[in-house]
Amino acid sequence: MNAPIPFVVNPDYRFAREWLAALQREMPGERIVPLNELDTAAKAESTFAIVINPLPEDIRQLPRLAWVHSVWAGVERLVTDLADTDLKIVRLVDPQLADTMAEAVLAWTMFLHRDMPLYAAQQREHIWMPLEYTRAQAKTIALLGLGALGEAAARRLLDAGFNVCGWSRTRKTLAGVECFAGESELPAMLAKADILICLLPLTAGTNDLLNAETLGHVPSGASLINFARGPIISDHALRACLDNGHIKHAVLDVFSVEPLPPDAWQWAHPDVTVLPHISAPTDCRTASAIIAQNINRYRETGQIPESVDRARGY
Amino acid sequence: MNAPIPFVVNPDYRFAREWLAALQREMPGERIVPLNELDTAAKAESTFAIVINPLPEDIRQLPRLAWVHSVWAGVERLVTDLADTDLKIVRLVDPQLADTMAEAVLAWTMFLHRDMPLYAAQQREHIWMPLEYTRAQAKTIALLGLGALGEAAARRLLDAGFNVCGWSRTRKTLAGVECFAGESELPAMLAKADILICLLPLTAGTNDLLNAETLGHVPSGASLINFARGPIISDHALRACLDNGHIKHAVLDVFSVEPLPPDAWQWAHPDVTVLPHISAPTDCRTASAIIAQNINRYRETGQIPESVDRARGY
Repeated sequence: MNAPIPFVVNPDYRFAREWLAALQREMPGERIVPLNELDTAAKAESTFAIVINPLPEDIRQLPRLAWVHSVWAGVERLVTDLADTDLKIVRLVDPQLADTMAEAVLAWTMFLHRDMPLYAAQQREHIWMPLEYTRAQAKTIALLGLGALGEAAARRLLDAGFNVCGWSRTRKTLAGVECFAGESELPAMLAKADILICLLPLTAGTNDLLNAETLGHVPSGASLINFARGPIISDHALRACLDNGHIKHAVLDVFSVEPLPPDAWQWAHPDVTVLPHISAPTDCRTASAIIAQNINRYRETGQIPESVDRARGY
Repeated sequence: MNAPIPFVVNPDYRFAREWLAALQREMPGERIVPLNELDTAAKAESTFAIVINPLPEDIRQLPRLAWVHSVWAGVERLVTDLADTDLKIVRLVDPQLADTMAEAVLAWTMFLHRDMPLYAAQQREHIWMPLEYTRAQAKTIALLGLGALGEAAARRLLDAGFNVCGWSRTRKTLAGVECFAGESELPAMLAKADILICLLPLTAGTNDLLNAETLGHVPSGASLINFARGPIISDHALRACLDNGHIKHAVLDVFSVEPLPPDAWQWAHPDVTVLPHISAPTDCRTASAIIAQNINRYRETGQIPESVDRARGY
């Protein structure tokens, strides 16, 4: 019988029970046990754990721990919280996640492309006024981030007829996508955007990447979607760009503080669409199946799954 | 030199000038002349005209007229207004139109699929609450109408991962689409809809097709999009279905009276999205090029382009 697998969850997280059920269903041969239900012997021998934004002091209760598996794809908080450990961090790499994110990219690109915010404003005033229509073929969508998410998004946007360009830290090659790389090429890429979409991981290098200076390179009247992490865009700079009309509309799914506080300016800004971090909801069923595969392979081979590059941040 | 081509436009129409310029640009060898600028001799000899919802009395000023070319795809008003003539009516068949309509179908399907109306309502109340997400693969989009528009729409929806079924007057076969035909199969098709989309032409047979009885076959909680013509859906029955929650949300781009009067109930209904007839705006440049082709062929061969089946209505 395998040793129990510690399940270490942040006390603020609401759906721990659903995750535990889904994980246990995918791993009938394992016992997955919440940290506070583990006995001292089990704590002493665990070499890995499944975690959801765990508290560092909870992790310290597991002295032999070598690695943790996060149930999520975004691990920047985990990387920070575990900075003074040498634990390997394994994050969720779920092909379904890229597909759902790509769908969200297409959905909210269409929302902006077909002027849904303006028609909603006209409806509130009972105004019947067709707006000028520009074909997708005459618009450029600029993607920040060309990893698994960016690549899937680019394919959907190309299929929908848009021109697509993209930017990444290191140079990528994607069929049909004009690719830019590195800090020096960021302004040229931003200058092409009718709609700018952020899909970057949050790292020391992307924190505050879209600030007053870089947003200045975006053409006047362009729109913006942030499906990545709040701190990548300067709140202050974005608000100024919306107030002076330089940015026409922002779709924001992520924020520096989540849930977004009820008095935050974004809620009531006429040119902001607020979403509650729902662009690519992790499906605990498909995610649990992937985590189970990784754990089964570790049980068989002793090999820790590919883990996060801590310096890079993802 | 060819005889001038009469251009007969409803006096209420606002964009006659733009059309005249676009048409003239595509037919540099022709003279396209507004009816009130034509001399009596020219009126007496014209065998065809380009028309935009013309008044019947204007048409009667052209005694030798054999056919008219509408600049639009929807000709139900023209068919009614010209009912006591034997003029052949040629309507616009523009591949670009089907593409733009298919884009609108995808865009507003995503609007409903990704719960944009609910998230907008939550934003107004500053409520942060992720809603349950159901994958496209678990939803069925039901298309009323499987002509050029329906076929293009079905392809886009299939590419986006949805299940697609469709209904038409006569049976069609479309790869990947479960096809229903005729009045007897309408209830079975309606019963499959998570989102029901109307793309039918308005004819005697489709007028009031979606009424209290037929809407009763739609599953409770389904949504509806009308991109076709207002009178196909009973306003009264739709309002009742929205008020009692049987229909979750309606996206309405077309109405029995257009522009929608400022005091119409649809504007302020919380579960209605009103659009000002913009699902597939006719691009006067691409449309004029197609009209020019038809007219050039007629000049060369004397053959009238394929015209509307008056009994069928399109």
